[in-house]
Amino acid sequence: MRRTIFYVSDGTGITAETLGHAVLTQFPGLEFTSIRLPFIETPEQAMHAVERMRAEAETRGVRPIVVSSVVNPAIREVLNEADVLMLDIFRPFVEPLVEELGIEPSPTIGRAHGFGDAARYDARIDATNYALSHDDGMGRSYDEADVVLVGVSRSGKTPTCLYLALQYGVRAANDPLVPEDLEAGRLPERLVGHKGRLFGLTIDPARLSEVRETRLPGTRYASAEQCRWEVSTSERLLQAQGVPVVSTTRSSVEEIASMILNRLDLREKGA
Amino acid sequence: MRRTIFYVSDGTGITAETLGHAVLTQFPGLEFTSIRLPFIETPEQAMHAVERMRAEAETRGVRPIVVSSVVNPAIREVLNEADVLMLDIFRPFVEPLVEELGIEPSPTIGRAHGFGDAARYDARIDATNYALSHDDGMGRSYDEADVVLVGVSRSGKTPTCLYLALQYGVRAANDPLVPEDLEAGRLPERLVGHKGRLFGLTIDPARLSEVRETRLPGTRYASAEQCRWEVSTSERLLQAQGVPVVSTTRSSVEEIASMILNRLDLREKGA
Repeated sequence: MRRTIFYVSDGTGITAETLGHAVLTQFPGLEFTSIRLPFIETPEQAMHAVERMRAEAETRGVRPIVVSSVVNPAIREVLNEADVLMLDIFRPFVEPLVEELGIEPSPTIGRAHGFGDAARYDARIDATNYALSHDDGMGRSYDEADVVLVGVSRSGKTPTCLYLALQYGVRAANDPLVPEDLEAGRLPERLVGHKGRLFGLTIDPARLSEVRETRLPGTRYASAEQCRWEVSTSERLLQAQGVPVVSTTRSSVEEIASMILNRLDLREKGA
Repeated sequence: MRRTIFYVSDGTGITAETLGHAVLTQFPGLEFTSIRLPFIETPEQAMHAVERMRAEAETRGVRPIVVSSVVNPAIREVLNEADVLMLDIFRPFVEPLVEELGIEPSPTIGRAHGFGDAARYDARIDATNYALSHDDGMGRSYDEADVVLVGVSRSGKTPTCLYLALQYGVRAANDPLVPEDLEAGRLPERLVGHKGRLFGLTIDPARLSEVRETRLPGTRYASAEQCRWEVSTSERLLQAQGVPVVSTTRSSVEEIASMILNRLDLREKGA
């Protein structure tokens, strides 16, 4: 069964898409085609959106599902004319909150992902610059880091650092455990003073070999044997030092970032 | 008025937090302290969570608000014992979908941000590596780019590229318009063949000067005059070439990324 899902918003539509995706994945066997309609800001644009929904219903032979985070009343009114299953992601929560808080909502379009919070924005941009300048051991001084990710080459450190920065404003550096570090059998000098902020990443050796093969095919660096040795040695070293270690083999960047925040009790910056 | 918000999940909690934040920002004057409780995977952990909620209610003198994306029934049961305003972010949408689709949901914990979709994951990691190796004109060949962001130094290109990669799996390169390019008064040769994929970023000159001052204080590069000249010249150049231009001064990274996707009709990769 394939259905068309529209994500409609007067902002970026990121909230609608995040929630809609999470709900829809709970229905096994359902396949869907997603159409994003962000920044619907005028009744005219809303009428065009309704037209697209009608056309889609005709092509597909079944009405589409619309996940909406539109807050502007004039635009909601136009959209409500469409023959669709309308899932308004805010409506169910506004009423209980009005009752709980005793204050009336003042829907402000796009505030959720807007520029509204300058401190939060600056923290995220700062953290991104920090991650970029402290990638792959480049910084070598971690005094300003909230967290330092350690692990062998291609264990997933860089995307995790960038995600921590962009999503949470956390300053994450990363430092590779290279074969010389592993042979020495102890925590590199440069990391010793930062033990409370270290977080280890590991990866299944077979997967690591695959990833390295794409990068440098046929090398010792990518060989199954080398990957097995690096992974087992780094895991042993980190565990002996009491550094928490998580595997990136079966976890998404979001999950790893969330685990790190949780484990190190880091709070979002500027929030 | 300050209230405590718990974000509780048996996954990362990202969906709960995204939606909760969007709803709560609609209540002006409400200030809140957020506590994340992700990866609540056992009834014991749920009982600890309930205990924390009780303690918070006592300290604060008012019951907390809980935004929950927990799908595991045993854990939900424990959480429902807490004296809180419980906002379950999935419940309101499951029933209408069951009716619409005629299939029963099979809640799978953490699927929304989980590893479930390997193709999507790989696309995002690939795109991140691409963004890093094509940052600030490093790549110089944009044949594989989905989009090439152009603009003066510090106009916000790098964070936008990384966000496009991590969030959408879009391969975004970026290329700086340096003073020599601006003096030449035409699109640099290296960009001419990629016109359909170019997207311009601009920024308020005063804000640009501020940002550059933090980086290289007291330089010509950071001077108000130089910033004004670079911004106006680059805007004129891009507009003359029909390259869409957006200002990063008052928009968040999410908004800019969403506008670019929308404008260039890019689709999420591996989705």
